[in-house]
Amino acid sequence: MRYCVGVDIGGTTVKLGIFEEDGKVVEKWEIPTLTENEGVRILPDIAASIQEKITSCHLEEAVCLGIGVGVPAPVTSDGVVNGSANLGWKYKEVKKELEELTGKAVLVGNDANVAALGEMWKGAGKGRSNMIMITLGTGVGGGVIVGGKVIIGEHGAGGEVGHICVNYGETDHCGCGNQGCLEQYGSATGIVRLARKKLENEERETLLTKAEITAKSIFDAVKAEDAVAMEVAEEFGEYLGNGLAILASIADPAVFVIGGGVSKAGEIILSYISKYYQKRAFFANKQAEFVLASLGNDAGIYGAAKMVIDQ
Amino acid sequence: MRYCVGVDIGGTTVKLGIFEEDGKVVEKWEIPTLTENEGVRILPDIAASIQEKITSCHLEEAVCLGIGVGVPAPVTSDGVVNGSANLGWKYKEVKKELEELTGKAVLVGNDANVAALGEMWKGAGKGRSNMIMITLGTGVGGGVIVGGKVIIGEHGAGGEVGHICVNYGETDHCGCGNQGCLEQYGSATGIVRLARKKLENEERETLLTKAEITAKSIFDAVKAEDAVAMEVAEEFGEYLGNGLAILASIADPAVFVIGGGVSKAGEIILSYISKYYQKRAFFANKQAEFVLASLGNDAGIYGAAKMVIDQ
Repeated sequence: MRYCVGVDIGGTTVKLGIFEEDGKVVEKWEIPTLTENEGVRILPDIAASIQEKITSCHLEEAVCLGIGVGVPAPVTSDGVVNGSANLGWKYKEVKKELEELTGKAVLVGNDANVAALGEMWKGAGKGRSNMIMITLGTGVGGGVIVGGKVIIGEHGAGGEVGHICVNYGETDHCGCGNQGCLEQYGSATGIVRLARKKLENEERETLLTKAEITAKSIFDAVKAEDAVAMEVAEEFGEYLGNGLAILASIADPAVFVIGGGVSKAGEIILSYISKYYQKRAFFANKQAEFVLASLGNDAGIYGAAKMVIDQ
Repeated sequence: MRYCVGVDIGGTTVKLGIFEEDGKVVEKWEIPTLTENEGVRILPDIAASIQEKITSCHLEEAVCLGIGVGVPAPVTSDGVVNGSANLGWKYKEVKKELEELTGKAVLVGNDANVAALGEMWKGAGKGRSNMIMITLGTGVGGGVIVGGKVIIGEHGAGGEVGHICVNYGETDHCGCGNQGCLEQYGSATGIVRLARKKLENEERETLLTKAEITAKSIFDAVKAEDAVAMEVAEEFGEYLGNGLAILASIADPAVFVIGGGVSKAGEIILSYISKYYQKRAFFANKQAEFVLASLGNDAGIYGAAKMVIDQ
């Protein structure tokens, strides 16, 4: 038997999975991410946990194809991370260090890129080789896949879809320092910001004033046909539709896979996004489909394993 | 000896070249493009001309690796063009037809993508595998290369960099039907349009009113430190800098190669573009360099040959 290991390192937990070559799950588990002391424990903990699981699954005699790792940071082509705020890491030779700890081949990628690969392999983008995944979470992340390969770029910063400018008149700043980034409108915090701005000058009765405003409460209000919430969703959809039209004119995808916390509102968000996408997309890109991500939190471990299989 | 043929089909002339595998030119020539009758003569003329040249160069016994062709239209992965206004073509199976005519393997690509490949192989992007070429001509075209491969996309419409939106307030329409496309500001016609708009409300003395306004006359005036022309160049630079910042956040290039007629103004245009690029680029992309294309009209035949070599 030949197997590979997929690892998805997040700020609170590390998700791990052992997969057969065809994607069948042998074992799936998680361990806490210890970010203290510049995250010095993270890689040794991962190595020990994988070794334990190999023993308990009786895989000592099986062939390990390697370990794939997704990290919340840009990753250079030689598996180096130049700092990850979420993990406490400064400069970190992830590939080298984990190879020394495990004695196995290691491949490292950006977590959003890796998740996109997972959705392409076993999720909502299955069977497609030109696919863009957009993750609407705390920020807006993504992975751009062209011809079956994730766009990594020169500095490991390819596919930073949250930081394309969709509003040249914006006066507020994005976390990255720029103004008008897609992330300022399409993320969970972005749509809340849009709702708060709207309420500043709003006199109509609205469900949005009845409870804490969250991405979920906004889309719950949209589903209850709250007029103010529906206008917020239109704004959200317009910024995202415009942003995805730009992405399409560059990468020409067959499908957009939309994931992340905001996407839990369901198909309704796709209708708001695709409406404005259709208005703005270059004619050759209008046929692109919109689907919701289907692997949830497992996309990362699937994609990390797929990196190893594709190498 | 092993050789390949590069063909670049334009609206007035077809450029052709025979290359050795290392890029050494064996022969370079051109023939007119006969676009009458839906361009029915174009491919037979090319086939006959290549055959003649093979004979005159005594290459009958040498190994032909194939023929690469650049076409001014999106091209599907199986070498089909669904219409090219410049050539008069409707639906055209370019690969199949030229293979039947020549008895040789044929690969077909979009001309802007192919030119980008040429600049990467033997021009200003030599040695780089993450490169974006921007062609500022009648329109704004380009090719986006990531990991040494051109982004083609699902419908052959990848790298349509001229149609990313950089101005959501635009009221004029682009040729594609949208509003605010990069092409409306960064092309030869685009910068002339910017200059004309500026002159509508301009009372200062300016060189721009002394002769026909062209991209060349505008940059000549900039070089003469004409204040009005310099403001037009700033606008041009801002739109392009903003557009290239978007491109970088997706493809993360090492270098931007700027070509096309407008780029004949020289290094001065790079300074206007990179100034605004630096203001707007995502931090991880700020190190990207800006250089002028160096192969001129030969980029297409080099890139077409390189397609064959890379297959």
